Amino acid sequence: MSESTTSPRRHRVVIVGGGFGGLETAKALKGAPVDICLIDQRNHHIFQPLLYQVATASLATSEIAWPIRSIFRDRRDITTILGRVVGVSTQGRSVFLEDGTAVPYDTLVLATGARHAYFGHDEWEPFAPGLKTIEDATLIRRRILLAFERAEREQDPARRAALLTFVVVGGGPTGVELAGTIAELARTTLPKEFRHIDTTTSRTVLIEAGPRILSSYPDDLSDYAQTSLQQLGVEVELGRPVKDCSADGVVYGDRTLPAATIIWAAGVRASPAAEWLGAAADRAGRLQVLPDLTVPDHPEIFAIGDTVAIAGPDGKPVPGIAPAAKQAGTYVGRAIKARLARKAFPAFVYKHQGSLAQIGRSRAVIDFGWIKLRGWLAWWIWGIAHIYFLIGLRTRLSVALNWLWIHTFNQRSARLITQRDELGGSRRLK
Amino acid sequence: MSESTTSPRRHRVVIVGGGFGGLETAKALKGAPVDICLIDQRNHHIFQPLLYQVATASLATSEIAWPIRSIFRDRRDITTILGRVVGVSTQGRSVFLEDGTAVPYDTLVLATGARHAYFGHDEWEPFAPGLKTIEDATLIRRRILLAFERAEREQDPARRAALLTFVVVGGGPTGVELAGTIAELARTTLPKEFRHIDTTTSRTVLIEAGPRILSSYPDDLSDYAQTSLQQLGVEVELGRPVKDCSADGVVYGDRTLPAATIIWAAGVRASPAAEWLGAAADRAGRLQVLPDLTVPDHPEIFAIGDTVAIAGPDGKPVPGIAPAAKQAGTYVGRAIKARLARKAFPAFVYKHQGSLAQIGRSRAVIDFGWIKLRGWLAWWIWGIAHIYFLIGLRTRLSVALNWLWIHTFNQRSARLITQRDELGGSRRLK
Repeated sequence: MSESTTSPRRHRVVIVGGGFGGLETAKALKGAPVDICLIDQRNHHIFQPLLYQVATASLATSEIAWPIRSIFRDRRDITTILGRVVGVSTQGRSVFLEDGTAVPYDTLVLATGARHAYFGHDEWEPFAPGLKTIEDATLIRRRILLAFERAEREQDPARRAALLTFVVVGGGPTGVELAGTIAELARTTLPKEFRHIDTTTSRTVLIEAGPRILSSYPDDLSDYAQTSLQQLGVEVELGRPVKDCSADGVVYGDRTLPAATIIWAAGVRASPAAEWLGAAADRAGRLQVLPDLTVPDHPEIFAIGDTVAIAGPDGKPVPGIAPAAKQAGTYVGRAIKARLARKAFPAFVYKHQGSLAQIGRSRAVIDFGWIKLRGWLAWWIWGIAHIYFLIGLRTRLSVALNWLWIHTFNQRSARLITQRDELGGSRRLK
Repeated sequence: MSESTTSPRRHRVVIVGGGFGGLETAKALKGAPVDICLIDQRNHHIFQPLLYQVATASLATSEIAWPIRSIFRDRRDITTILGRVVGVSTQGRSVFLEDGTAVPYDTLVLATGARHAYFGHDEWEPFAPGLKTIEDATLIRRRILLAFERAEREQDPARRAALLTFVVVGGGPTGVELAGTIAELARTTLPKEFRHIDTTTSRTVLIEAGPRILSSYPDDLSDYAQTSLQQLGVEVELGRPVKDCSADGVVYGDRTLPAATIIWAAGVRASPAAEWLGAAADRAGRLQVLPDLTVPDHPEIFAIGDTVAIAGPDGKPVPGIAPAAKQAGTYVGRAIKARLARKAFPAFVYKHQGSLAQIGRSRAVIDFGWIKLRGWLAWWIWGIAHIYFLIGLRTRLSVALNWLWIHTFNQRSARLITQRDELGGSRRLK
């Protein structure tokens, strides 16, 4: 890495992670007397709340992803590095990249997020991929679409039924949104396109270990979501944890369900930031941080977003959602500014602005705390809110156009089977 | 394959290939007393004339690709099969798929297209990928974008120069369009986004073995295209054939050019349709067909598009462009209808409607025969013509929106580095 050669040297802030937290930190540092280095292992920021729409062929990848360096093209104080961080030297104050490069920092911000986790059963991953990256989304899209293609040509009824069974594990917002959209795809988008199968007979099964779906929402919204999903044709299975995932299907509780497609939306594990620092972490690998979001004994290291565990003002854990990561990012940017100006800065306080989840193409549930909404009005608010938070006018127009099409004509545009897949490559198309 | 069980059995038409030729055949057969089976190894039809815009990050994949079975959702007489054809039994009148399935036909239409070819140097392919599929396009996009990312972090000036050198081999329309767009990407879209390199110093080199680019166009349009490319910053190298492609770069004539990115737009080779039939083919593997587009001695087998070699009314070969394949498809559809009605049908006559090529975001050349156009007016006609031929109103709006953005703001939306790449995987990001 060549260093900025201005002298005297400016304070160096290294931000690891170009998700919501990292981006907001960089934005909040605008105008600060610092040189920022933003490192991500991908060249693009992803709008994660809509990733399930790529996985279900509703949106194109480029509608929810933007090159990070394009976002900061006008910020000359920000250098973007495409690289994978493999370690941190807290003594030497450097971040190490996979190729051996050391990137020095004065202040380090870890915003490295989380991956899906299998509760100690990583061997399930090939059969039940999770949804965190663009590649995850196109892989899942590929599997869903190929399952219908294979079913169309399958002679054996049992095998055909397994191909037409789609299992989503995990009844949180992502699981609910995935299950609802898959059911709609099968029931309204695809039926006229196949000649040997009736796609409306396909099963979408949402498996949740707990007693209700959307457990972070009020009871009545959970109930409404469940009823709405069932009306879309989703079978909701509660209270039975998944015990096995394989090429044959899923075992949950005492039941075995043959299924060719399983999608994992049940758990996450923090990135290895805690390992890099040799710092304390909880069971899900999340760093423990102080109220000012710094790592204990390391006031020069902040950690935010899904890679940390902190409590909100109500004592409950701050949820792993975009607004929480963005608030923490803004806080850290301001805290660094205040520190450089030798001003005091209060502790981080998370403000929960609300929870939204879409259920199919015309319903949603919203919990703003002071008001709860459901149905078509909630869907419009959900849609407008999500379009508002997209980056750039062109993307907003494009996504709005796509949703209008899906809403009106039930046509989903991004139904491409691309990419290779170890488990289900086109060479094994059968 | 389960067969349609209506009796008496209808005449079975099997179309292999969901490109322009295959699609038009199926469309022209509308209303005919036949059962159609359309087989393609991909689930989507590609609008090939704009594939280079995916490779250069201007359009999203889903804007130029549509699920084939979606196109024919309302045609109950058409069954779409996702599968790879590996052979034909002309005696048994069956097409064989990779998984062993035999699909019987009464009339067979081979519209299997072509792949890029390396004139006997297939070992060049890993270093100089061609552009025929969505995967090809995202691979090339990945390489172009990664080259800039690596250059940004490269300390060695020679290596950095090689990373910033983009070579396009072949001065036909695809090569011209690729070179122009890459130069624009480097000179107008990217400059503000990098901190350690000046992307305007990158070189785009178009290598053509012949004496001029766009050799199928009139001389003055070739000259105009060359001047326009040079104004965009493209170096046009004429009269020197490529002798080697490697990880180090390209050797052409007596020159060696270090380059990390090489794109092959120089030659095509027909699909193995001639091999399947054991029929006569020319040097590029193209089937010889009779004036009615049937294969000699096999009146029940038609072959069209890039997989055949036929002469136009002027004696020159019919070009491998979309309108030619579509005309042949329409002809074959009508010829089959006529044959079933026991009517005579004249030989195929290709009508050349014109040639269009884009040069950067505001110029084009058009040769309609009766009129030649160049410059911004040609660019508008080029744009409107291409939007007109896209499938579906939503796609048209989406592409128009994207082009408007590129034209006005120079922002290219689809700059995502995704997919794995043996040669340039992110694990080897250095």
